[in-house]
Amino acid sequence: MANKQFSPEQADLFYQIIHSRRDMRHFLANESVSARALTRILQAGHSAPSVGLMQPWHFIRITSETTRASILENVEQERLLTAAAMDERKAEFLRLKVEGIQDCAELFVVVQKPDDGTVFGRRTLPEMALCSVACAIENMWLAARAENLGFGWVSVFDPKALALTLRCPEGAKPIAIICMGPVKAFYDSPMLVEEGWREEKPMADLLSENSWDGKC
Amino acid sequence: MANKQFSPEQADLFYQIIHSRRDMRHFLANESVSARALTRILQAGHSAPSVGLMQPWHFIRITSETTRASILENVEQERLLTAAAMDERKAEFLRLKVEGIQDCAELFVVVQKPDDGTVFGRRTLPEMALCSVACAIENMWLAARAENLGFGWVSVFDPKALALTLRCPEGAKPIAIICMGPVKAFYDSPMLVEEGWREEKPMADLLSENSWDGKC
Repeated sequence: MANKQFSPEQADLFYQIIHSRRDMRHFLANESVSARALTRILQAGHSAPSVGLMQPWHFIRITSETTRASILENVEQERLLTAAAMDERKAEFLRLKVEGIQDCAELFVVVQKPDDGTVFGRRTLPEMALCSVACAIENMWLAARAENLGFGWVSVFDPKALALTLRCPEGAKPIAIICMGPVKAFYDSPMLVEEGWREEKPMADLLSENSWDGKC
Repeated sequence: MANKQFSPEQADLFYQIIHSRRDMRHFLANESVSARALTRILQAGHSAPSVGLMQPWHFIRITSETTRASILENVEQERLLTAAAMDERKAEFLRLKVEGIQDCAELFVVVQKPDDGTVFGRRTLPEMALCSVACAIENMWLAARAENLGFGWVSVFDPKALALTLRCPEGAKPIAIICMGPVKAFYDSPMLVEEGWREEKPMADLLSENSWDGKC
């Protein structure tokens, strides 16, 4: 299995998943995700690479409506604080939909576990543990797209308050509220592009040779 | 394209890519990566999600043998410093192969760009920019596997010295040395498992419901 050779057509299919992934905020209400898809998506997350094989992620599935409401309130408060921290774009920001917590079929919080002291690959870069958690989330995101499910990573929240809500131990840090479930349609382009919030940079601007400013 | 529906067989194929991805350290020498595969892998990275659409990544392709040698030296120095920071496992660590810099066909450094001041999704979690870069690397990693190429994220290095080597501007931070290219074989299990360094945790240990300690 580890040595499976993928055909050019299979690689093409993979790129279709990569390029049709979107950060979704609009979900169909009153829908569900099959237990099989849910398990496979979580397994994809748990199969992510991690520095020194730390596997520093913890997934909390939210099934309590009370907890869901509390998470929504946390996000709503931070949305207003974020708006207050903006100047001329405040009104524009407030018109954007920044979460899909109420409608999404499945709600998860991904928590970075307390540091286990791993030195391997982290002596100079302790933040590699966070990178591993991000890789797990990206794996889940792509898996959800392969299952034709929308997925959104919400980071507009107060992590300390959320850690309290979820009774996280000292040192554990929520880094993502994940909304997942069936959608009416995937955005044709990233929602922030469609809404005129920001343009995407061409890849050529972010690529160089042998040094930061090297020509390609 | 964004609304393509994937079949169950296509989803299965995606999971085969996810589960056969490995953090490679052993590469075939004197090989190359086609320009087409290289471009598609970089485009996969550049198509990653990013907080507030920051796209905070910069990819530096290393083609200079002098620069490659300098990067290898940086890693070798940090490998010894990491070993020195370990106690009883020092000798065991020194026997592990932690990089494939000399043999890999393609060598990249991924740099997190200087902060552009994005507040969206980052007021309470500024580290989301780093998460976006990690997602870009994971996209590249999976793309490389779909292209049957090995890929390894090396984080055993001194980021300040590497930033100097690559003439990175103030505030830019190298977070990954990426080794990529043809391999003789992918490890059946993660190399650190095969080498007896660490065992993988079962997913059930990292999953709970409604709270950190909730039952599933």
